[in-house]
Amino acid sequence: MSTPPPALGVAVIGYAFMGKAHSHAWRNAAALRPGAPGVRQQVLVGRDADAVAAAADQYGWAESATDWRSVLERDDIDVVDVCVPGHLHAEVAIAALEAGKHVIAEKPLANTMAEAEKMVATARAARERGVHSMVGFNYRRVPALALARQHVAAGRIGDVRQVRIAYLQDWLADASAPMTWRLRRETAGSGALGDLASHAVDQVRFLLGQEVTGVNAVTRTFVPQRAGADGVEDVTVDDAAWTTMRTDGGAVVSLEVTRMATARKNALGIEVYGSDGALRFDLESLNHLDVCLDGADSFSRVLVTEPDHPYVDGWWPPGHVLGWDATFTNQAADLLAALAAGQDPTPSFEDGLAVQRVLAAIEASAERDGDHVRVDRGVEI
Amino acid sequence: MSTPPPALGVAVIGYAFMGKAHSHAWRNAAALRPGAPGVRQQVLVGRDADAVAAAADQYGWAESATDWRSVLERDDIDVVDVCVPGHLHAEVAIAALEAGKHVIAEKPLANTMAEAEKMVATARAARERGVHSMVGFNYRRVPALALARQHVAAGRIGDVRQVRIAYLQDWLADASAPMTWRLRRETAGSGALGDLASHAVDQVRFLLGQEVTGVNAVTRTFVPQRAGADGVEDVTVDDAAWTTMRTDGGAVVSLEVTRMATARKNALGIEVYGSDGALRFDLESLNHLDVCLDGADSFSRVLVTEPDHPYVDGWWPPGHVLGWDATFTNQAADLLAALAAGQDPTPSFEDGLAVQRVLAAIEASAERDGDHVRVDRGVEI
Amino acid sequence: MSTPPPALGVAVIGYAFMGKAHSHAWRNAAALRPGAPGVRQQVLVGRDADAVAAAADQYGWAESATDWRSVLERDDIDVVDVCVPGHLHAEVAIAALEAGKHVIAEKPLANTMAEAEKMVATARAARERGVHSMVGFNYRRVPALALARQHVAAGRIGDVRQVRIAYLQDWLADASAPMTWRLRRETAGSGALGDLASHAVDQVRFLLGQEVTGVNAVTRTFVPQRAGADGVEDVTVDDAAWTTMRTDGGAVVSLEVTRMATARKNALGIEVYGSDGALRFDLESLNHLDVCLDGADSFSRVLVTEPDHPYVDGWWPPGHVLGWDATFTNQAADLLAALAAGQDPTPSFEDGLAVQRVLAAIEASAERDGDHVRVDRGVEI
Amino acid sequence: MSTPPPALGVAVIGYAFMGKAHSHAWRNAAALRPGAPGVRQQVLVGRDADAVAAAADQYGWAESATDWRSVLERDDIDVVDVCVPGHLHAEVAIAALEAGKHVIAEKPLANTMAEAEKMVATARAARERGVHSMVGFNYRRVPALALARQHVAAGRIGDVRQVRIAYLQDWLADASAPMTWRLRRETAGSGALGDLASHAVDQVRFLLGQEVTGVNAVTRTFVPQRAGADGVEDVTVDDAAWTTMRTDGGAVVSLEVTRMATARKNALGIEVYGSDGALRFDLESLNHLDVCLDGADSFSRVLVTEPDHPYVDGWWPPGHVLGWDATFTNQAADLLAALAAGQDPTPSFEDGLAVQRVLAAIEASAERDGDHVRVDRGVEI
Repeated sequence: MSTPPPALGVAVIGYAFMGKAHSHAWRNAAALRPGAPGVRQQVLVGRDADAVAAAADQYGWAESATDWRSVLERDDIDVVDVCVPGHLHAEVAIAALEAGKHVIAEKPLANTMAEAEKMVATARAARERGVHSMVGFNYRRVPALALARQHVAAGRIGDVRQVRIAYLQDWLADASAPMTWRLRRETAGSGALGDLASHAVDQVRFLLGQEVTGVNAVTRTFVPQRAGADGVEDVTVDDAAWTTMRTDGGAVVSLEVTRMATARKNALGIEVYGSDGALRFDLESLNHLDVCLDGADSFSRVLVTEPDHPYVDGWWPPGHVLGWDATFTNQAADLLAALAAGQDPTPSFEDGLAVQRVLAAIEASAERDGDHVRVDRGVEI
Repeated sequence: MSTPPPALGVAVIGYAFMGKAHSHAWRNAAALRPGAPGVRQQVLVGRDADAVAAAADQYGWAESATDWRSVLERDDIDVVDVCVPGHLHAEVAIAALEAGKHVIAEKPLANTMAEAEKMVATARAARERGVHSMVGFNYRRVPALALARQHVAAGRIGDVRQVRIAYLQDWLADASAPMTWRLRRETAGSGALGDLASHAVDQVRFLLGQEVTGVNAVTRTFVPQRAGADGVEDVTVDDAAWTTMRTDGGAVVSLEVTRMATARKNALGIEVYGSDGALRFDLESLNHLDVCLDGADSFSRVLVTEPDHPYVDGWWPPGHVLGWDATFTNQAADLLAALAAGQDPTPSFEDGLAVQRVLAAIEASAERDGDHVRVDRGVEI
Repeated sequence: MSTPPPALGVAVIGYAFMGKAHSHAWRNAAALRPGAPGVRQQVLVGRDADAVAAAADQYGWAESATDWRSVLERDDIDVVDVCVPGHLHAEVAIAALEAGKHVIAEKPLANTMAEAEKMVATARAARERGVHSMVGFNYRRVPALALARQHVAAGRIGDVRQVRIAYLQDWLADASAPMTWRLRRETAGSGALGDLASHAVDQVRFLLGQEVTGVNAVTRTFVPQRAGADGVEDVTVDDAAWTTMRTDGGAVVSLEVTRMATARKNALGIEVYGSDGALRFDLESLNHLDVCLDGADSFSRVLVTEPDHPYVDGWWPPGHVLGWDATFTNQAADLLAALAAGQDPTPSFEDGLAVQRVLAAIEASAERDGDHVRVDRGVEI
Repeated sequence: MSTPPPALGVAVIGYAFMGKAHSHAWRNAAALRPGAPGVRQQVLVGRDADAVAAAADQYGWAESATDWRSVLERDDIDVVDVCVPGHLHAEVAIAALEAGKHVIAEKPLANTMAEAEKMVATARAARERGVHSMVGFNYRRVPALALARQHVAAGRIGDVRQVRIAYLQDWLADASAPMTWRLRRETAGSGALGDLASHAVDQVRFLLGQEVTGVNAVTRTFVPQRAGADGVEDVTVDDAAWTTMRTDGGAVVSLEVTRMATARKNALGIEVYGSDGALRFDLESLNHLDVCLDGADSFSRVLVTEPDHPYVDGWWPPGHVLGWDATFTNQAADLLAALAAGQDPTPSFEDGLAVQRVLAAIEASAERDGDHVRVDRGVEI
């Protein structure tokens, strides 16, 4: 056995839902990926000193801290993991990269195009210095979706013509559900669009290897006001969004995202139809992939737990299914492996920016009653 | 027992796929609907004398004929059933109504708005004279969809917010499939749009009791040329269409129709999400309806074969499922019952026209790159 | 086109559930089976003159009668279809065969082994005179099950090792459901066993081409008394039965039948596992067959509506599903075709007897606390 | 916040499949169970010094060791986790208990009844001294199955009448798969029976709170010889087993276990039918539970990821599914919580013994061609 790479020191900024999920990933990545570098869970950062200390203790971190800038100065931190709300992504990620830390930032990359573009510029400069960055579209690491991508890339469904994606949740279906920061534009940027459609657009790029070139889109806020702590407030983001997208490869993609689909909890459904086959996936049964390959006539339901399926080898024997958290563990392990190899991890900040551009086009179209809007491809990508 | 109503004499014009299905319906309607008038299967009409005679014999008709006008003069014909291609609907239906025959016309009502409007005008005049008409949106008679409508109408899913419909077939996915009249605009009018989207739009109106007011739409012809008998020909209709529709009740409807979805045979999927529940249906499993009612949190899978479910009582005991053909049998029985009661059957020609107007808006939007188009509601409806 | 065979005159004895279903079959068989002889729906026979006359009228029969023996003397009757309760099967079927009528008898063949054996003896003698007979195991004519048999016969799942069958209904789950003749041994013979297990045992023989050689079995009556018209009565048949069966081909079959499985309406589930593949079927979705063939690793879900699938060609285009009633229509058409060709239809009365022998062994084992009982193969078969 | 309980030191004996899965559980238990004591992953024990050292490093253990007895003497070890093959369970578990260590032993409890009984006697004596023990039937900690148990216990499906369990795998379906120690009686004790049926029998006891009193059973070895390293060897354990079991609550349980069910990977399917409802579960989709409660008529498909579902609260928000590994994490967290509270964890060694007694009855029945065998209930339980 060759000498294993040295363990990397990690700091996670943020300890809420995503901070907890990423902590889980760092705690497990090395165990489920033979040959990857080990991880030192060094610091968990949050604003409330007591709360973050308790979380750090529970989630396996050696220390906690309240000032994210403090970790940038430490030599024992190699990776900064940005799990703060979207409007803070740019500030933290840019500072960390400039301090020479590798960075992984949660999706979506940023709340504004300007921030996203600045993050990309910084990431490019850092890359020249061997400092790497990644955006956290974790569903690229669902084994079934990674397998789907392999099938498309290998031509086993032929030329892709149509993609159907729906990401359906129901946590806002009840009109009496209270106001939250997620429903205010100033803090959340957008609603289902940034939260759910970002994953979907990333999957289009991931699965097809194609870019979205134009969109028609509609958005709706079905419950325009909700009860807040200080009385009734306006909801200023979308509850649901619909878009029909064209790609540069000639495919048409229909996408619907919503937080109002009663009885659907986390239903990211993806169907890809090609000239020679088709694929079908549902996140609520994320270990299965329905495949129709090489001109077959019906779907086979594959339990994606075989040793030769992507990501499975480090986990359990066939038939022993993975959970949602495995996507983060796989993501962390991929990042560790890339850093050990001195390679750029994917998806890059550029990938994050490409998604943002599509979301911006969707918003622009929705403002014009769904009229067609081309995706601004920028000057640099 | 009261005296049963006298049997009605029926003529079917056309003996291809739809003529066969309607023949099946007339042969069975009285047997599966206690109390409905009997049926005399009088004449089957087609252009090829030998072929239509053989079909008439096989399908249970007393006679065959080659001139559809001949049946209009016969006193023993009460109902004329129009199963000819769409560009002939108007001529046959109008003549039959004017001859005092009740008419049922296959969907879509006509290939052009002008024809559809003329058919409606004729139907209205005939109605004044006690002569009735109906358009054959047979999926209104799927028990599960009729049950779905009851649930919506009873408020059991609350206010409808989102409807997702996809009608996916794959019989043109293979680029080497040959040219047919269905792929030429002059004969077929449109492609997946008229054939499949017409059903879907009718279901929106049927299930919600709402009208579509505006659309964004995209269409595609993925295989632009196909081999015909005399060489390569251009395909001049759509292979697939996508539209996002708004209704006058505030709902948004996403619709995708295609003949290119490999591995999907006749997959009309309908999902309806309301403020207090949801419904889900798939035509490939047409005896099931998934229901989430009255604020429940998950779908119940109902086998729609109970005696108190719509249409089931005349058929078989619980658990004994119906086939696709039952939709036509139920449709014929409903028409018979309406005629016996002197009532207007539904859906009416006006319903057919309302669907055509939405399809016209979809085509108009698709021509403008998906820009928003309002549905012309006409002056009379 | 060759001259079609002359139409056959049919009489159905019995007009309840099975009489209605068989009437439907005779009304439609010729229309859905090109080339089969036509059918004259001549006489429907029942004890209540008014009721049977009304039923005859509704179901398309030319006449009705109250004495089943009267039809045996008529020259215009070629086929006698026995839809009376099981304890009358032998008397009617034997008389009809001796009168030179072809006979189809509903399943199970008879209530006692003695009757079944006598029926077989009569059928054999009649066969010598060109008079044919058939027992109505209609599920052999489910296209998906006929396709399953083809796959097994072609060796596409290898040697069959294990078969899992469950036939689950729930119409007696409610302990307050009233007493009926079906729950008395003297009229019904047995409970779930004769009604449901007979189908399952026939499928084992049909799908595998193997004979059951021995069984262990348990039966239960979970609700031992029910309210009858004249007070509480004992239920004297089984509510549910379980058996593990061995076949002469080395397979083991597990079978469970019940009328107490809450939420299951007519769930005949069949799974066949072989050395090189597997098959899976559910009667509540009877147009689908899950297939794993030729050493594949997962199930493909096939919609059995393609033209090259068994029985489909005479019906509708791909994707247009059949109902439960189609099994009877296909059965009638097969009988007509066999008679036209002068061939013995299947399944024969011998097949019916073979099933009875297995049921008898199951009952014997259940009486001995499940101890092993060999199936008596008789002397003649 | 109260003072958290002190962290417990753990040693795992064995580092193969189960050792890896249990390591995962210890690494994560505290993070996913607020309030539980922390865990010190102290020692991983195995026979190959280099291999176990590498495994310890990868799986997060502070040390490794080659002699399991060495850990019994250490004061920093509170819990000994027995993941060695079954024939070693008794020796390790008894020594550990006698050394005052809490013990968790993998299932099945032991390979012989004598060993199992001795383990129970030791566990009882240890319990008097405050030393606790547990057997690892991890599927009790599937949230969906824990929810199922709650529904049964609350009477929401009424009196349980029928239970259907199948545990289907296919890793031996290929006759050319090689010989392993799992297929020799001397090392494995039994085949599918001990490996798979033990889980199923435990679930019967867990879900119903009833004891199995008698069985009929059949076993088969479909591939009697396989290629080993030194030539062809006899397979001396069962490939598949079938049993019909009675419980002391009047229910009948059908059980089928196999390693030969082509296309089924880890399909533990459980159906429970009661007088007032039903439940349905499949391990390959382990986050779902189909429920028919309180006299309802159809199954609702529940995604068991809500905060009020068992075990979910410590994990992720609704809709974010768990994997197979979560069952071990939940099990470890339950053990930690019980130890912190000074309570006996469940299932106990007595539970493990109760399962062994049923398995012994199944083997005895199978040897007698399936004749009925009563379960020996022993003298003490």
